[in-house]
Amino acid sequence: MAERQSQIVLGIDPDPADLWPQQPPHRQQAPADAAAAAVLAHCRALIDAAGPACVAVKPQLARFEALGEPGRAVLGAVVAHARAAGLLVIADGKRGDIDVTAGAYAASLFGGMESPFGHIDGLGADMATVNPLMGRDAIAPFLQAARAAGAGVLLLVRTSNPGAADIEDLALAGGGTVWERTAALVDELGAAGVGDEGISDVGAVVGATAPWHLDRARELMPRATFLLPGIGAQGGRVEELQAAFAPGRAGGLVSASRSIARAHLANGGSPADAARLESERLRRAAWELSAVR
Amino acid sequence: MAERQSQIVLGIDPDPADLWPQQPPHRQQAPADAAAAAVLAHCRALIDAAGPACVAVKPQLARFEALGEPGRAVLGAVVAHARAAGLLVIADGKRGDIDVTAGAYAASLFGGMESPFGHIDGLGADMATVNPLMGRDAIAPFLQAARAAGAGVLLLVRTSNPGAADIEDLALAGGGTVWERTAALVDELGAAGVGDEGISDVGAVVGATAPWHLDRARELMPRATFLLPGIGAQGGRVEELQAAFAPGRAGGLVSASRSIARAHLANGGSPADAARLESERLRRAAWELSAVR
Repeated sequence: MAERQSQIVLGIDPDPADLWPQQPPHRQQAPADAAAAAVLAHCRALIDAAGPACVAVKPQLARFEALGEPGRAVLGAVVAHARAAGLLVIADGKRGDIDVTAGAYAASLFGGMESPFGHIDGLGADMATVNPLMGRDAIAPFLQAARAAGAGVLLLVRTSNPGAADIEDLALAGGGTVWERTAALVDELGAAGVGDEGISDVGAVVGATAPWHLDRARELMPRATFLLPGIGAQGGRVEELQAAFAPGRAGGLVSASRSIARAHLANGGSPADAARLESERLRRAAWELSAVR
Repeated sequence: MAERQSQIVLGIDPDPADLWPQQPPHRQQAPADAAAAAVLAHCRALIDAAGPACVAVKPQLARFEALGEPGRAVLGAVVAHARAAGLLVIADGKRGDIDVTAGAYAASLFGGMESPFGHIDGLGADMATVNPLMGRDAIAPFLQAARAAGAGVLLLVRTSNPGAADIEDLALAGGGTVWERTAALVDELGAAGVGDEGISDVGAVVGATAPWHLDRARELMPRATFLLPGIGAQGGRVEELQAAFAPGRAGGLVSASRSIARAHLANGGSPADAARLESERLRRAAWELSAVR
């Protein structure tokens, strides 16, 4: 972050029906292969344009899975392109399951696994989003694999969608809400992984559309990195995220997807130029905001 | 179910380090390709042996993702093999996300999606497990895609692991627990999808390791199919599942994975023979139990 002076995370959610203009596909390709090639070209162009103002990319795993068989190879190529551009990788799959299953997901996201057939590579992500609903023993395998790979996890604490009210916001008999209990779990699990900067390897997804939650979230998770989705398309504003940066500039990762990839629709210009300008605008806004302490 | 007189779901969780004996792989293959080929051969043999006593297969998506690039093609081939054997397919991925992302997951699991490149196929699952933490608007796209494909969803309500106590079992200020609130959501969302048999297209995952929850779960979700994992390896017993079958024989899907695939370790014999016997034993136990009403 310090090197790039950026807390911006470039969300990569490619919709085959809404890609940047490019060469038409080869006619003879199957739909999934043609879509896969076009998605990869789009993602590379997006990273080339907006990457310099960002510290990480956040590929949305759903979008690659929807491509079918070629999806995982496209995802791997996007991750490789981001790494070559000096960016960290946050795999956004919101996985959650128990013991050996969680271990298989974690192997797939982080360092891969040993097998009688040799080592099978994982995605090599630096962080991955994890759904905490199933509790500690469902989170543990992700954290274990992440730590073995020098990576981290981001638990869903208070998401940016209206439905967050249905379960996450429920008030508990013992006081507080479900999301506040999850926040306490983030703090507990991260205690063993606090680095030199005072930031732990267990972070939290806290929607930027509800900035009034940020103060309380920071109180409960003083050492967690917050991944803040919801900027732009979902209505969140960088200027309201101050509490996220309380532990320092590394305390907040500001995620933006559509507001960068579709900036040309709002601001004109070529998609690449508009993405470059918007990502740089967000970078500057977050960096300046996080200095005011 | 009536046709096959079975409520047994064959869980397919292939661990590359624990496959049934088979021909050694071709030496020249990359580890991921060799593992993929061996996993596919194992899954086909398992379906051939245990499939006749089952009504569905439940592939664990994590295990296929851990294979890397070839994983999705192997999953597709396993699904095709199960279909050819007359089995339903329950995609166990426990996905959960908001709006367009949930839509992409749902397209991938059910009927695929239209794109400017042509139709991209989905997995064609009959049901898929969904994580409800993010609330109604995160569940809706799954249910919409499922209904368009004549399929259903299974929400995680009360899972079979110890960590279920951490969040799912929390007592709410308004009475009841988090999982009971989720159960009410299952009933609410399923109301519009109740079929001729009185069973809805929104079901629930309710761990078979906590049968004392089943009565209460059935009270809250009178029309839901219960997917009951945890039989065998996790300690659950078919004989304790009576409440699941209250709405009729289609009310409970009894899922078993390791207890079938590893039956030879406990009971001797070849893996295929032991799997055949154990799946048939489970089938008979559940079918007889569900008749006693």
